[in-house]
Amino acid sequence: MTYCIGLRLNSGLIFMSDTRTNAGVDNFSITKKMFTWNVEGDRVITIMTAGNLATTQALISLLDERSKITSERNPTILELPTMFQIARLVGTTLKEVIDDSNPAGPEASTKFKASVIVGGQINGGDPTLFMIYPEGNFIEVTDDNPFFQIGEAKYGKPILVRAYDRAMSFEDTIKLMLVSFDSTIKANLSVGLPLDLQVYEAGSFAVSNKPRIELGDAYYEAVSSGWGDALRTALDQLPSYKG
Amino acid sequence: MTYCIGLRLNSGLIFMSDTRTNAGVDNFSITKKMFTWNVEGDRVITIMTAGNLATTQALISLLDERSKITSERNPTILELPTMFQIARLVGTTLKEVIDDSNPAGPEASTKFKASVIVGGQINGGDPTLFMIYPEGNFIEVTDDNPFFQIGEAKYGKPILVRAYDRAMSFEDTIKLMLVSFDSTIKANLSVGLPLDLQVYEAGSFAVSNKPRIELGDAYYEAVSSGWGDALRTALDQLPSYKG
Repeated sequence: MTYCIGLRLNSGLIFMSDTRTNAGVDNFSITKKMFTWNVEGDRVITIMTAGNLATTQALISLLDERSKITSERNPTILELPTMFQIARLVGTTLKEVIDDSNPAGPEASTKFKASVIVGGQINGGDPTLFMIYPEGNFIEVTDDNPFFQIGEAKYGKPILVRAYDRAMSFEDTIKLMLVSFDSTIKANLSVGLPLDLQVYEAGSFAVSNKPRIELGDAYYEAVSSGWGDALRTALDQLPSYKG
Repeated sequence: MTYCIGLRLNSGLIFMSDTRTNAGVDNFSITKKMFTWNVEGDRVITIMTAGNLATTQALISLLDERSKITSERNPTILELPTMFQIARLVGTTLKEVIDDSNPAGPEASTKFKASVIVGGQINGGDPTLFMIYPEGNFIEVTDDNPFFQIGEAKYGKPILVRAYDRAMSFEDTIKLMLVSFDSTIKANLSVGLPLDLQVYEAGSFAVSNKPRIELGDAYYEAVSSGWGDALRTALDQLPSYKG
């Protein structure tokens, strides 16, 4: 599995992804699941992937390769004019990859599935996020539904639902996302450090990569160990049961 | 789905189960998933069930019916001498029900699956809990693994992992369990109020049924609405991210 969160704030977008990939518990390694394309002053587009690694790597390679071939008839991820069209391109490319890997028919297709979060901003439009399904169709964030999770999403969802607020600062949101990741990592072996993190400030059209959060990172450890105490204090604040 | 928690404390056992059952989102109703057998002064045995409703109802009916037929050759849930033997009886009965519903072979058997938590105390032994799988085998709680969840367990697990302590009072544990249920109910339509609750005090060999926690219950509402604020306060206590 995998765990990725893409989240929209008033001030921009934040992306966080784990890096564990596994084919059985005895075969795991570290792989990057977050990829960014940038045309300074024009666009920043970030993609996070979950699912079959062969599928997601082929998706990223195809998107990247096609963006470099100037003779391609079709506009690429570096040229399309809106985020909606970017989401369509990623969706059709994902579907193409899954269909290609899939000579054995519908039964095998579930094995090659992948889900994708695409987000960013293109000059002239607002920052936004899309979640793309293996079928190639997609949904966009709304004010009612301001973040997407892919992969092992259940453990870390309650804290996001409770504490997210679109007016939050980047720093507070990163703290919140780390708590959500920590809850997931503590519960599921298929999600693991290091974590990749990217913050996109609305209207900047520039990448600001944060350092990868490695195993043993002092801040992550402080959040992880402090959260247990903070939760117990929070429970104490609630009224007692009188049965 | 379903959500049930069975939890062992120094002072005894607590069981909590939701009551929603559904066959598709357009066909849902309320059903009891917690059942108790009691021989005053000798034993209290509580069973919670998750999975196919026809399977779990047949399981409970068989256990109950057989405990009332005095001519049965085999000892029943009211007579077996240890909790381990109770768990074996429940396991074999569960397997029998699943096998009976299953003329179409292994593929159909996944449909009829169910999981069960059995807990209680028999005079001469300690209070304990077992989790029973559809195959009829089972595991027992240990100090390292002091609670079991069945059904939609992921959303509510992180708070249990973080805040459970075997020295907790019954009142504080009920509060903790309600937070775990609330996190699940907020995230998944297949889990819903009312909640059934039972507290077993070690060595009492008597049932102390707590009132069902109904929709609109004042204490549940206080925990549910207070938890969001408490979590935000808890997050504020953690150090800020400096990237």
